Amino acid sequence: MNNLRLTIAYDGTRFAGWQIQPGLPTIQGEIQEAFFRLTGEKVTAHSAGRTDAGVHALGQVASIRTTSNLPLERILMGMQHFLPEEIVVRRVERVPLDFHPAFSSRRKTYRYVMLSSLLREPFLRRFAWRVRPGLDDSAMRRAAAFLEGRHDFRCFETQGSPRADTVRTLFSVRVRRGGVWPLLDASAQPMEDPGGPCVTIEVTGDGFLYNMVRAITGTLYEVGIGKRDVASVGRLIADGDRTLAGQTAPARGLFLVHVDYGTETDTDV
Amino acid sequence: MNNLRLTIAYDGTRFAGWQIQPGLPTIQGEIQEAFFRLTGEKVTAHSAGRTDAGVHALGQVASIRTTSNLPLERILMGMQHFLPEEIVVRRVERVPLDFHPAFSSRRKTYRYVMLSSLLREPFLRRFAWRVRPGLDDSAMRRAAAFLEGRHDFRCFETQGSPRADTVRTLFSVRVRRGGVWPLLDASAQPMEDPGGPCVTIEVTGDGFLYNMVRAITGTLYEVGIGKRDVASVGRLIADGDRTLAGQTAPARGLFLVHVDYGTETDTDV
Repeated sequence: MNNLRLTIAYDGTRFAGWQIQPGLPTIQGEIQEAFFRLTGEKVTAHSAGRTDAGVHALGQVASIRTTSNLPLERILMGMQHFLPEEIVVRRVERVPLDFHPAFSSRRKTYRYVMLSSLLREPFLRRFAWRVRPGLDDSAMRRAAAFLEGRHDFRCFETQGSPRADTVRTLFSVRVRRGGVWPLLDASAQPMEDPGGPCVTIEVTGDGFLYNMVRAITGTLYEVGIGKRDVASVGRLIADGDRTLAGQTAPARGLFLVHVDYGTETDTDV
Repeated sequence: MNNLRLTIAYDGTRFAGWQIQPGLPTIQGEIQEAFFRLTGEKVTAHSAGRTDAGVHALGQVASIRTTSNLPLERILMGMQHFLPEEIVVRRVERVPLDFHPAFSSRRKTYRYVMLSSLLREPFLRRFAWRVRPGLDDSAMRRAAAFLEGRHDFRCFETQGSPRADTVRTLFSVRVRRGGVWPLLDASAQPMEDPGGPCVTIEVTGDGFLYNMVRAITGTLYEVGIGKRDVASVGRLIADGDRTLAGQTAPARGLFLVHVDYGTETDTDV
């Protein structure tokens, strides 16, 4: 038995999210189907985070246990052959049998892209939330600082999906202003450009509650338009009342950027 | 009577090109329809270049003669309201009645994006031609130098569409290697990155024959994979035989970037 770790990028626009659902196109369903067509083996692909409908990934991580001994490069190219064009497996590695993409992860990074402009951007329409021009990213940055650290984040959890433990650590919450394209670069840090039309929020944490990044985004957006003052974000964390947080930002601006497992191990392709 | 100059960007993927055709979605058709819905006036939109099916634009220029006296900002936002999401009018300006987007232009710039990689890039699938990894962009750059200047470019014209005069001046033919996203930035020069997976060809000239940029791209591609030597591109120009040039590269990697009219005039929005 082998345990394979797959690093996956996708444009999630036309998918009903990661998790397999009967009759709907899902990332998990496509990955499992492609692996079946390649090896004849029915597998379950576990992921680091079950991205919602319309959410994208630059570096999702999944694992598959298989009896197949196909060379890793054959698996990489075979998956590309059988997957739809919105999904690509970027890396395949052999990992220890006890590796689990979610439970073994130390930190995950999400990026949310806002286009702050009166005018549309045709090339970003699937990948950004368009909001009014003139977002005050400086105020958003000061508000974001209240979110860094270990806090009870239940105020940012979508109601009706309670978890027992709502304490998480956010290692960083970065607000950047930049041009249109560099913000979507998977490998590099987003380039900063004070005159650019995009504002991104990049959050790295040890775990995330349901819709947490999108609720943080909606809240910082309200700071950016002056509807909410900077200090109120500190009180929100202290009070823990979801009804006081901002709206949940739409899925299309959200990217799972990277999952960190501490020491990077094992054979790369 | 007013003459309006529109600067337009579009994702051309699902359109049958600029030029209006009955029963097919076209950029010209969408622009004229949006203007009609906004003003009630039936107009003809002329363009700087009739981009083909699947070709994109970052800065196409069109003109519309109208009796409407709507404020320019109302036209800008009204066009956005009525146009499909793949098309955006970025600027509207009032120009002299004798301005014509094609005949008044001094130079046009096209950019062609190649992704030189074994692996797909989901976010670029509509915007780049994926070719084999390891393109020799240095050889392509040396070959491109043969194309700069005033030459008879009939070797790069698609057969069956002859023009009387096939002499054109290319002011620059630049081959660059870079990362995935910066290459699509409309405002900036593409960022160079020697380790990036993309190779772009950016051509500025006083005019272009039918499919000329795509035939130049196909020819430089053959230099990049070693199928054709650098000096042969010089002979190609000298001989003028289309059958000796490379294949026509696919439409989806091509962008009309900018049209230059010399002195920039008139009222901006």
